[in-house]
Amino acid sequence: MKFNALNEKHIRTLQHMVAPDRFSTGDSVLDLHAKDQSQHGPSRPEAVIWPLDRNEVANLLRYANDHRIPITGWGSGSSLEGNPIPIHQGLVLDFSRMNRILDIRVEDFQADVEPGVIYQHLNEKLRHTGLFFPPDPGAQATVGGMIANNASGTRTVYYGSTKDYVLRLEVVLASGEIIELGTRAAKTSSGYDLVHLMVGSEGTLGVVTAATLRLVGFPVEYSAAIGTFPSVKAAGNAVFEIIRSGLNPAALELLGPECIELMNREERLGLNVSPTLFVEFHSSSASHLAEVLEMGREICNQQGCTEFRSGLGKAERDHIFKARHALGEMIIRTHPDCGTLVVDVAVPNTAYPEIIAAIGDEMKTTGIMGYTFGHAGDGNVHFNIPGKKGDQKQWAQIDKLVQRLVSKALDLGGTATGEHGVGLGKKKYMAAEHGKSLDWMKQIKTLFDPNGILNPGKIFP
Amino acid sequence: MKFNALNEKHIRTLQHMVAPDRFSTGDSVLDLHAKDQSQHGPSRPEAVIWPLDRNEVANLLRYANDHRIPITGWGSGSSLEGNPIPIHQGLVLDFSRMNRILDIRVEDFQADVEPGVIYQHLNEKLRHTGLFFPPDPGAQATVGGMIANNASGTRTVYYGSTKDYVLRLEVVLASGEIIELGTRAAKTSSGYDLVHLMVGSEGTLGVVTAATLRLVGFPVEYSAAIGTFPSVKAAGNAVFEIIRSGLNPAALELLGPECIELMNREERLGLNVSPTLFVEFHSSSASHLAEVLEMGREICNQQGCTEFRSGLGKAERDHIFKARHALGEMIIRTHPDCGTLVVDVAVPNTAYPEIIAAIGDEMKTTGIMGYTFGHAGDGNVHFNIPGKKGDQKQWAQIDKLVQRLVSKALDLGGTATGEHGVGLGKKKYMAAEHGKSLDWMKQIKTLFDPNGILNPGKIFP
Repeated sequence: MKFNALNEKHIRTLQHMVAPDRFSTGDSVLDLHAKDQSQHGPSRPEAVIWPLDRNEVANLLRYANDHRIPITGWGSGSSLEGNPIPIHQGLVLDFSRMNRILDIRVEDFQADVEPGVIYQHLNEKLRHTGLFFPPDPGAQATVGGMIANNASGTRTVYYGSTKDYVLRLEVVLASGEIIELGTRAAKTSSGYDLVHLMVGSEGTLGVVTAATLRLVGFPVEYSAAIGTFPSVKAAGNAVFEIIRSGLNPAALELLGPECIELMNREERLGLNVSPTLFVEFHSSSASHLAEVLEMGREICNQQGCTEFRSGLGKAERDHIFKARHALGEMIIRTHPDCGTLVVDVAVPNTAYPEIIAAIGDEMKTTGIMGYTFGHAGDGNVHFNIPGKKGDQKQWAQIDKLVQRLVSKALDLGGTATGEHGVGLGKKKYMAAEHGKSLDWMKQIKTLFDPNGILNPGKIFP
Repeated sequence: MKFNALNEKHIRTLQHMVAPDRFSTGDSVLDLHAKDQSQHGPSRPEAVIWPLDRNEVANLLRYANDHRIPITGWGSGSSLEGNPIPIHQGLVLDFSRMNRILDIRVEDFQADVEPGVIYQHLNEKLRHTGLFFPPDPGAQATVGGMIANNASGTRTVYYGSTKDYVLRLEVVLASGEIIELGTRAAKTSSGYDLVHLMVGSEGTLGVVTAATLRLVGFPVEYSAAIGTFPSVKAAGNAVFEIIRSGLNPAALELLGPECIELMNREERLGLNVSPTLFVEFHSSSASHLAEVLEMGREICNQQGCTEFRSGLGKAERDHIFKARHALGEMIIRTHPDCGTLVVDVAVPNTAYPEIIAAIGDEMKTTGIMGYTFGHAGDGNVHFNIPGKKGDQKQWAQIDKLVQRLVSKALDLGGTATGEHGVGLGKKKYMAAEHGKSLDWMKQIKTLFDPNGILNPGKIFP
């Protein structure tokens, strides 16, 4: 694809399309939209625009398409694979001002939102209704970014990913055409599922300007427990057994001792510095919860658990979740002279002990150290590896290690990315994961975006 | 699209591609593959082939594509909108001999199956594992047909539709190319979701030759109850309140008095001949179940429920489900000189009382009588209207009535088909439901099947 650089005429026209205070070419603004939270190098856009409604977005896309100017959507910049970095420059559309909650339909368990809504804000707004939007990637993510990425988080093992909560989408296509997808009905068999084609497409097929989200009722009762294990491998085995038993946890997080140490230091959690499982159960019955927790304890003990502490109060549980969600940033802060490469593979349940063992073996063999954690309940493991900035030799070693782990995950029937998306970092694994179907993804891309202006350089190798 | 009729040369070549006993142009065979369980008129294919593996399917499709011969997949012929009727003739691929359960991975909660597996057979096979495949359309449906149609049923309100249980697909495209989609991991953010593009596409984008299905654990405890109401409207209001309250039923079925009468007659159920809700709850805790049932009783009583009978034993509950599943066929048997037009709209929860009222109003105004029932818990209502075969005036009236009801459902934010698919009967509503996005569905169809050989004449008006 060949793109045009923004010239003076483009800039005048684009400025005219939105209010002057919603178009910027200022250095600090461009810097702020040059990188996400990954280790991928920055690339500044040529201008940033803050659209206010779908018609502005449609006009901007039409113009950009006619003039071959790249368009990259921007939520809060919290993604972890370079997904919104405008590597071909052009325009970034920052959706932070399209952040209205349009409608909350309590009795339909639905909310209509603009893409710039931060999901925690939506959940605060929903609190008095007894409903919530379950996916929780942790960072201050926008709903638009979560849809683009099919984001998930600690609750996904029980509640599912973002894709399970999107009923309708309003999407602006590259041509500027606005289409509406989906239905408010709880189920449908009407035509092709274009909603789920858009979810997870990382802004490469269209730009979401509104969404109807499905909500669910707050759990009446919940209970959390912490299990301490002699090895990461033993904890991985317990994960497998808990899922296998059908106990249906609402969260099942694995944390290596190096993660616990960090969380203790930064958040004064006072946990045993050992491989740890953090598990939570939801139910509408307290007695049921007690039964389930007891079964969880037995399973953990069978895997050599040295301490199983249940009955965590709300304050402690919230504190641990907060620390868990901040873990990625803690790792970055702890290694100020390093970039952090984040592995995000997911494997089927039976393969979880094996992928955990593979990470341990890699550390032993290569001497490269990292942080092992993840949403273990859905087979998702993260391995965050700090590497010295500029140390090309070290980065080459890290890159090879990651390649081996991703290949291992794919061999085990898993995926190269459980939740962070393909972005820039996982492009090279797409052919191995998808084989010939990658070519069909490309053809769909070309169909929807023939000039390739939408988030160019992402997903496809 | 212009297709070629099968000539002698085609037939000889096709016969050569499979064993002689798996190719037929016999009258009775063609008749058996000329219609489904809907009122849509029959259309015989020119030949029926029973493929045994994906390579045969690939060879057949490649040949059919080169020679512009229509290909329609066939499961068990149990669909309700003419979905597999070969209206452009050509070849029917009957998957009844590709019915192997390839692998059951208990500890991954997964089963790999061929498309011809009947879902009840899979569930029988799974019984000793404690796992099951929840979607239950009722008829002896094949997994392939269920995937093509995104089938759902009585348990969908709790467990979701077929689309929620498909992890991987092996698909043969029109060109004969075989692609594999999806992953065994519980979640992924890797590229475009082509699995869900295929699910519900009614065999118009490709032919599924294998699937990996997600399984779930059997509920430890369940309890069923029957509520009797003074009017269908009151029952509809109770549905709304039960869903609104977040009680999370595992089945919530509405049955008009005419349906109860029929079920009593054919299955000796001995139920009160009144508008009825059949509700079931699943839990892993008996005390929790008791609480939930009590809340259900209160809600029903507030809506004027005249009798709420809980604590149904397994035998009675299974009997009612069996009768409910057979209801469509009972209606057909009861009106031997009639075709039955089946309305299958779904609306958001708040609109359920309104769509139920609209059906009542239509019956009063037009004098056209029908059977009102449905998977009320997910906003799905069926209205089956027997119309005298050949009575064109009556059919024109019925058709107008249905058009008004579907328009009403769409106005209420719903869908023209909750679970039966578009097939032949719902094509005319696609533009109203999908607007401009229908054109994008068409373009995707053209991309995957440029010669239009796959199940031609379906979905698109």
